[in-house]
Amino acid sequence: MMTDYIESLQKLAEQFGRLQGIGRKSAMRMAFSVIEMDEADAYEFASAIMEAKQKIHECPVCGNLTDGELCHVCEDETRDRSVICVVEDVKAVMSIEKVREFKGVYHVLHGVISPVNGITPEKIRFRELIERAGQDGVEEVIIATNPTPDGEVTAMYISKYLKPLGVKVTRLAYGVPVGSDLEYADEVTLGRALEGRRDV
Amino acid sequence: MMTDYIESLQKLAEQFGRLQGIGRKSAMRMAFSVIEMDEADAYEFASAIMEAKQKIHECPVCGNLTDGELCHVCEDETRDRSVICVVEDVKAVMSIEKVREFKGVYHVLHGVISPVNGITPEKIRFRELIERAGQDGVEEVIIATNPTPDGEVTAMYISKYLKPLGVKVTRLAYGVPVGSDLEYADEVTLGRALEGRRDV
Repeated sequence: MMTDYIESLQKLAEQFGRLQGIGRKSAMRMAFSVIEMDEADAYEFASAIMEAKQKIHECPVCGNLTDGELCHVCEDETRDRSVICVVEDVKAVMSIEKVREFKGVYHVLHGVISPVNGITPEKIRFRELIERAGQDGVEEVIIATNPTPDGEVTAMYISKYLKPLGVKVTRLAYGVPVGSDLEYADEVTLGRALEGRRDV
Repeated sequence: MMTDYIESLQKLAEQFGRLQGIGRKSAMRMAFSVIEMDEADAYEFASAIMEAKQKIHECPVCGNLTDGELCHVCEDETRDRSVICVVEDVKAVMSIEKVREFKGVYHVLHGVISPVNGITPEKIRFRELIERAGQDGVEEVIIATNPTPDGEVTAMYISKYLKPLGVKVTRLAYGVPVGSDLEYADEVTLGRALEGRRDV
């Protein structure tokens, strides 16, 4: 292939190809887009990568992403700390925040328990959840893991550990289509799912 | 939206969103991919952007991209300089090179004549083509613009100017599906189109 001869173009396309869900043709197309930018724009792009990577880290309280000290939810004094919504990843936080209906705080697991893939509770932020849920003032934990088999297993596991602590444990109502990802749920569906949450 | 609160993530997603054909959701997904990389990988990515942008330029002979002095085709002494294949863009060079059947050299127009879009012959590398084709030793010009209305207009226009110079002017055979882009043609089809090229 000709691009083998343009080493720096090939290298750039490989970098794009390492991003989640980007195939070879798309990666090359994106590399060309960069070549067509003017130099200042390319510099801005490269800087945005480094800046995001350097500034963004996990919120020490909930595991959400932030470039401040705490994430914007934990920082917000009007949020109700007695209700913790447990999610698999940061994208789920974004999806639920979009509904503008949930006033509690989050706990991001950064994964789900998955025996098939060897993901045990120790590999996700499970212990941190049990610690948080055991603190004074926590009344309800809403489990909003994805409606997939692993998400269900994780929900059951969490519920088993939290109930003895005297915390109310609920699960998002099945308003969300089974087998899908929260990220793709529309806002109305997610809103209904929040309203209709049930005891586990 | 929550990401409005993570300024550096939002900025990175905007940068991805500026790439050709990338929508908002894909851009955000790619920004997350970067956050999930380790720091060395993110640095490598950012460097690849700057390096490609700084090193890659147009070949002074044919307009193809290169990070050397001449492009790899013009640099190759075994290529037949008596046959010039005229293409719209660098992607078309890549497509034809993949066939490994064409032994001549290229001329990249960087566009097509398009009266509707106000693209006149002066705005593409048309004058350079006429100059090259008028040089001693050039026997044939194969016009391989895309089989679109603008590509056809450009082919006709080029043909009109080149014929008086005594150069044989041919057009890729319609093996390539009409209305599409050379980039998507499979290698067999492109090979046939080269073989069956006809006088214009």
